[in-house]
Amino acid sequence: MVPRYSRPVMTAIWAPANRYRIWFEIEALACEAMAEFGTMPKEAARTIREKGDAAMAAFSDADLARIDEIEAETRHDVIAFLTWLAEKVGPDSRFVHLGMTSSDVLDTCFSVQLVQATDILLEDLDKVLAALKAQAFKHKTTVTIGRSHGIHAEPTSFGLKMAGHYAEFARNRERLLAARREIAVCAISGAVGTYAHIDPRVEDYVARKLGLVAESVSTQVIPRDRHAAFFCALAVIASGIERLATEVRHLQRSEVREAEEFFHPGQKGSSAMPHKRNPVLSENLTGLARLIRSHVIPALENVALWHERDISHSSVERNIGPDATVGLDFALMRLAGMMEKLVVYPERMAEIVESLGGVVHSGEVLLVLARAGISREDAYRIVQRNAMATWTRLGQPDGRTFRENLARDPEVAGRVDAAVIDDAMDSRRHLAAVDHIYAKVFGTTV
Amino acid sequence: MVPRYSRPVMTAIWAPANRYRIWFEIEALACEAMAEFGTMPKEAARTIREKGDAAMAAFSDADLARIDEIEAETRHDVIAFLTWLAEKVGPDSRFVHLGMTSSDVLDTCFSVQLVQATDILLEDLDKVLAALKAQAFKHKTTVTIGRSHGIHAEPTSFGLKMAGHYAEFARNRERLLAARREIAVCAISGAVGTYAHIDPRVEDYVARKLGLVAESVSTQVIPRDRHAAFFCALAVIASGIERLATEVRHLQRSEVREAEEFFHPGQKGSSAMPHKRNPVLSENLTGLARLIRSHVIPALENVALWHERDISHSSVERNIGPDATVGLDFALMRLAGMMEKLVVYPERMAEIVESLGGVVHSGEVLLVLARAGISREDAYRIVQRNAMATWTRLGQPDGRTFRENLARDPEVAGRVDAAVIDDAMDSRRHLAAVDHIYAKVFGTTV
Amino acid sequence: MVPRYSRPVMTAIWAPANRYRIWFEIEALACEAMAEFGTMPKEAARTIREKGDAAMAAFSDADLARIDEIEAETRHDVIAFLTWLAEKVGPDSRFVHLGMTSSDVLDTCFSVQLVQATDILLEDLDKVLAALKAQAFKHKTTVTIGRSHGIHAEPTSFGLKMAGHYAEFARNRERLLAARREIAVCAISGAVGTYAHIDPRVEDYVARKLGLVAESVSTQVIPRDRHAAFFCALAVIASGIERLATEVRHLQRSEVREAEEFFHPGQKGSSAMPHKRNPVLSENLTGLARLIRSHVIPALENVALWHERDISHSSVERNIGPDATVGLDFALMRLAGMMEKLVVYPERMAEIVESLGGVVHSGEVLLVLARAGISREDAYRIVQRNAMATWTRLGQPDGRTFRENLARDPEVAGRVDAAVIDDAMDSRRHLAAVDHIYAKVFGTTV
Amino acid sequence: MVPRYSRPVMTAIWAPANRYRIWFEIEALACEAMAEFGTMPKEAARTIREKGDAAMAAFSDADLARIDEIEAETRHDVIAFLTWLAEKVGPDSRFVHLGMTSSDVLDTCFSVQLVQATDILLEDLDKVLAALKAQAFKHKTTVTIGRSHGIHAEPTSFGLKMAGHYAEFARNRERLLAARREIAVCAISGAVGTYAHIDPRVEDYVARKLGLVAESVSTQVIPRDRHAAFFCALAVIASGIERLATEVRHLQRSEVREAEEFFHPGQKGSSAMPHKRNPVLSENLTGLARLIRSHVIPALENVALWHERDISHSSVERNIGPDATVGLDFALMRLAGMMEKLVVYPERMAEIVESLGGVVHSGEVLLVLARAGISREDAYRIVQRNAMATWTRLGQPDGRTFRENLARDPEVAGRVDAAVIDDAMDSRRHLAAVDHIYAKVFGTTV
Repeated sequence: MVPRYSRPVMTAIWAPANRYRIWFEIEALACEAMAEFGTMPKEAARTIREKGDAAMAAFSDADLARIDEIEAETRHDVIAFLTWLAEKVGPDSRFVHLGMTSSDVLDTCFSVQLVQATDILLEDLDKVLAALKAQAFKHKTTVTIGRSHGIHAEPTSFGLKMAGHYAEFARNRERLLAARREIAVCAISGAVGTYAHIDPRVEDYVARKLGLVAESVSTQVIPRDRHAAFFCALAVIASGIERLATEVRHLQRSEVREAEEFFHPGQKGSSAMPHKRNPVLSENLTGLARLIRSHVIPALENVALWHERDISHSSVERNIGPDATVGLDFALMRLAGMMEKLVVYPERMAEIVESLGGVVHSGEVLLVLARAGISREDAYRIVQRNAMATWTRLGQPDGRTFRENLARDPEVAGRVDAAVIDDAMDSRRHLAAVDHIYAKVFGTTV
Repeated sequence: MVPRYSRPVMTAIWAPANRYRIWFEIEALACEAMAEFGTMPKEAARTIREKGDAAMAAFSDADLARIDEIEAETRHDVIAFLTWLAEKVGPDSRFVHLGMTSSDVLDTCFSVQLVQATDILLEDLDKVLAALKAQAFKHKTTVTIGRSHGIHAEPTSFGLKMAGHYAEFARNRERLLAARREIAVCAISGAVGTYAHIDPRVEDYVARKLGLVAESVSTQVIPRDRHAAFFCALAVIASGIERLATEVRHLQRSEVREAEEFFHPGQKGSSAMPHKRNPVLSENLTGLARLIRSHVIPALENVALWHERDISHSSVERNIGPDATVGLDFALMRLAGMMEKLVVYPERMAEIVESLGGVVHSGEVLLVLARAGISREDAYRIVQRNAMATWTRLGQPDGRTFRENLARDPEVAGRVDAAVIDDAMDSRRHLAAVDHIYAKVFGTTV
Repeated sequence: MVPRYSRPVMTAIWAPANRYRIWFEIEALACEAMAEFGTMPKEAARTIREKGDAAMAAFSDADLARIDEIEAETRHDVIAFLTWLAEKVGPDSRFVHLGMTSSDVLDTCFSVQLVQATDILLEDLDKVLAALKAQAFKHKTTVTIGRSHGIHAEPTSFGLKMAGHYAEFARNRERLLAARREIAVCAISGAVGTYAHIDPRVEDYVARKLGLVAESVSTQVIPRDRHAAFFCALAVIASGIERLATEVRHLQRSEVREAEEFFHPGQKGSSAMPHKRNPVLSENLTGLARLIRSHVIPALENVALWHERDISHSSVERNIGPDATVGLDFALMRLAGMMEKLVVYPERMAEIVESLGGVVHSGEVLLVLARAGISREDAYRIVQRNAMATWTRLGQPDGRTFRENLARDPEVAGRVDAAVIDDAMDSRRHLAAVDHIYAKVFGTTV
Repeated sequence: MVPRYSRPVMTAIWAPANRYRIWFEIEALACEAMAEFGTMPKEAARTIREKGDAAMAAFSDADLARIDEIEAETRHDVIAFLTWLAEKVGPDSRFVHLGMTSSDVLDTCFSVQLVQATDILLEDLDKVLAALKAQAFKHKTTVTIGRSHGIHAEPTSFGLKMAGHYAEFARNRERLLAARREIAVCAISGAVGTYAHIDPRVEDYVARKLGLVAESVSTQVIPRDRHAAFFCALAVIASGIERLATEVRHLQRSEVREAEEFFHPGQKGSSAMPHKRNPVLSENLTGLARLIRSHVIPALENVALWHERDISHSSVERNIGPDATVGLDFALMRLAGMMEKLVVYPERMAEIVESLGGVVHSGEVLLVLARAGISREDAYRIVQRNAMATWTRLGQPDGRTFRENLARDPEVAGRVDAAVIDDAMDSRRHLAAVDHIYAKVFGTTV
């Protein structure tokens, strides 16, 4: 992910320093466990821990350069790190990594990194949820037109829109928690995963200390269905971002203007035109969603490794691991900020509800006529005639609203009270179930 | 999905007759609920239920033709069905669908169909799991070479391979259950989802009766993040199928022949060559996995519907709904049968383990030498020298096995007992943790 | 592709009858060639052609059933067909298929089917192009607002919009022609493609007769990069359909109403509301585009077959071959009809251009002020001040247009002639280069 | 793309310095054109060119920092650059960018970058082609077994394998050239692409000077179908890389060992086991192919921008532009090196051809028996009987080869000469058409 769409807190997880810190932790914990189970001297484990901790605490660019130097020679990243560690730890380093394979370190480290990343993403989601909840309650009864197919349908409230997105992000939070469980696994099982050279209790110990669960069957690698499921969850979340971003883009259109992204007071638009406040944040989120979604395919293709393992997944994960988590973190934070500060125009919403002369209320008027004893067929005919009359003269000097047309219709006038018609055309009736819905979504109505 | 890859039990779910049956059930249940909550006469609800049940029980091709005829005229599938139903039910049909939208019926029906399909897929998965478990226990101690990068690494057991795939399919079962929960939802909330014309209790009633949960916020449609998550789960399962199919394809290669797909005794091969038993089932599964995986992208693109809803998701789902479930059902059943009947050649596996002259045991020999007090560097040098000598003369008349070469090496001969070397080269030591692993995977070791 | 989105002319290509017709043609042509090159009796080739032609001419459901019956027994589709053919042709049938493999027939047949499908798609594209061209010339000078980010930018013409889509579809036509060349190849090269049992001249002969080119290296199969490239081209076209469909969906929004899909005069909307004319065709096209795009991934995954060939591509192609071509044919025809009959509202377009009080002309006004000798900074300040004044009072009783505000601005009034300002605010100036563009796109301006 | 998979020559194209160099060139050329067509003073254009060239020649990190500083303030990258340029050029800078939009610069720059990248990719492809051609001619008659379904089929030559991949990469070269034409376009058409404020001749001039073609209809942006087609071409190439990488991975399997990636003499394997030479390059290429392929989906989703343009494509392209070209360049160079140095084992290939006792020749033997007047049915029965006898005793002490079994078969012995059988079992007959194929692929047979 290019720096423009990256936050340091997330990129730090994928930086070499963090990777080495986790590698050391895995090795040190494995040593502790081996010492406990009698396969290495306790003294050695203690030395490794102490000197290693000191080396990691003092870890600097010089160390990075030294590791790179060794890797250039050995062409193997884990060996390079272990060699550097041996330089720091001394002779006891011969006990480090005994019976383990590189994959034990690499895969468990990847799990730790994904868990760290997920914990940030969960915080991000909470910010998005908080922003949506705030808007939902602020605009619980802000009437706005509901649209199907981009066409005015019936009124709803802006709060309900927000509640719908809140509910989706709440589901996304559950999915992310499930995804976290998918990848919070540890594997320290040696060559082709048989524990032939290492005690399985070492794996359990390391897993517990790292807050992970021991993999049930690792075949030198943690099976990649877990990671595929993880990236799928991220893609679903990204699609939810796109849905909300698309909503904002629509609301900000010049013809709609019901809401818009916050615009810094002194900020210059892209030209002399003051209306040229472009929904660039939500457009950007749309693009980021496409990127994060695209990682799903290679992640799924990574599952079918050959036999006990091959290394084809590695180049994929070196890219999509950071790209997906850094990109999604940035997108969620941008979304949270955007929704917190979203500028909402309730008057404009009200204006748009009525902009079609009130024909959006024709469904309720139909029911009213039916209740007044008019047959379904007749009611439909009457409503359509008046709605059509309203629609065709819309904006013309001789245009009348739906209400006015109904009032003049002899088939209505004599049979249904004007107050009843007025009531049918009150948008607030569409808010009757808002409390019911809010109780489901938020567990509270206030 | 073309008929070649379809089972009737699954295609029946997507047949018009089943769809109409579900539509009727939704409408009838809604009527019952409305009657209970006083918004329609109980007598009418009873008539609708009785006459409707009778009509559905007698549902024939003539009814299908009649509905098609009406749809050709009205160009609206739900209206066509309701008109047909009215012909069957009589005047009380005027109460049917009151306050509801087509989406209430369509989306809830899609949920029911996906749940029905998922229940079959769960049974399929159970068959796959049973077949894998049987092979895992049958071959718990069948030694075979473990391969990383397609290269012999260290021995493992064929049972462990099977246990690994079992564990993956067990995870897939959990994912499918989660996916079922995602889409087991009901929405009967009317235009743009405000319940303006329908009592929310109707939705609760219908949901309960159908074994679904009422959607928290439907905006006329059930939000499509649920379906995206569902199709993602199917894609992860498909990838697991591909992993296992790829394993079988590898095992059946002419040079490997460790296992092969069952071949009917009298079956003619594709030519005069008796060895030409092609792994066509597993190759077919590989292709089917690609198809099922491909549905993930349009399912994710379906999430960002415009405003309260548009209809762009519909053409996607009319295709991938059946394609993904029919295809996955076929693939899982084919996989289950293939794994049940898989022909396994333990002798060939044993032969291959030793085919490289025993150098696959060099890791353990290294540890033995180290334990005998030889320094790590020396031990490595000794092992590599003898392994290299074995490797370079492999298959030559003067070739010796790794064991033979070690026996002749003066640095080994004097210092490590031959029996210890023999022990180090016993593949069974790689089975030491099999019980540990089986306990994790199967909860039992026998 | 479900029947709802299928045209018989395209599904016929994928029907068994057409497949068998092509299979016979390939076999018959191969026999003719072998007879010509002396590897089979001329008389036999003549008999095969004559009796075979007669059998294919009389081909009926009974023949289909007979072939299915044989296939159920032999479990091999090509052998089943050849057996049926032998029943029709008699003893000379022993010369049929000599030295060939099933793949020779299957792959060459797939090429023929894809070519047939492509020829229909090319006709479809021509219909789309014709519809776009007609709209482009009809509305060459119909002024409409150009929008970036969904926000009004500067005027353009509706014809230019159409010309842009025309240019894209013209490029798509070129891509489809290139895709046709990709797959218009023939392979008759026998087992693993060495021509060990067949004369290469047979391949050349059959290719020439079928209007194909002989593959340079087939390894029993035609390499699948060709098909991947083919499906990629279809996906690019599908994306072009989505772009145009998205434009129409936007134009038909209730707040915009600049154009709409044709609505049958007597057609009932989806409700009593006369404005409820939903852009269902373009929404449907959006969904179909997603489907066709999704085929790209499995088509690309099909490329890496194992060694000389495996059969994993087959299940993919049995589905996406028909799905992609049938779906795209349907989508293009639907698009062509939709664009032919698109209802365009020039008055509404004009109204919208001025709906923001004329601030969309601020860019040109800025240039005018600059030309009048006002410094860039001052000009910008003046323009922004007046645009902002216009914008903030938009729709208010005391609101003034941008022109009115400029007229009252002392810094403008004294220095720039009102007529010059008027001229700057004439949308027609944005049409100055229309002829230039039309010449590039259509090769003509009228 | 992470640095591990990046070459400086390609990353340099995407570095800020190159971008600014191109931006300046576009602006300077536009000024020259405007000067020529009389819309700006020639002197000013000359000053801009001279001072700008000097500034770009001296471009340093300080300039980068200065531009970043301005961008942090203006939040607009093009304005930041123009401001920096103004500081370098002086008052004449007021003529720079007149009548243009940011997109004119950004999109034309992206075209130039993609063209530059493509020219490197073409060189890379030439290296791959050269390596494949060399191997093809070196091993033109190196007999190796051809495999369908991973099962031995009939002999072919290793040269033919290489020729097949050569032919695919030659097609890929054509596709890349077509992709280059797709994106070698220039757009300088101003707001919403109407040339309202700029002379179309400026665009033609700049395009010509940059080696591009003027876009026929740009709507402020170059339409994204071009870029989608470009990334599709890259994905097809990536899939071809995967096919070849998969072949090498198969050939290097422990059981096959027909070829292997070059291994540095002194290089330590991943363990003590000398056979543990893993095909890590080809596995890495497999992963990179997945990544490059994944860019196709967001590129296709980018096509449907809203109205005249939105900015959603930008974040996608900022990532996949570099990722796809840097990744593909790295992959192609790695592939070229790998294929140049590929270690091929002809003896092992010969050994494998005969490893199944000669049953791979049963197809030709069948023809021989038939030519000897034995009926097809009898011939098939005889061949199968002997092949089966060979197969079932394969590797057993009493096992005989297919040839030996045939020699002992009374139905063969009396009727077909042993020399004829021997001839039928000569793998070289499968090389008869090699010249025919080479002539098609390479235009030469030597």
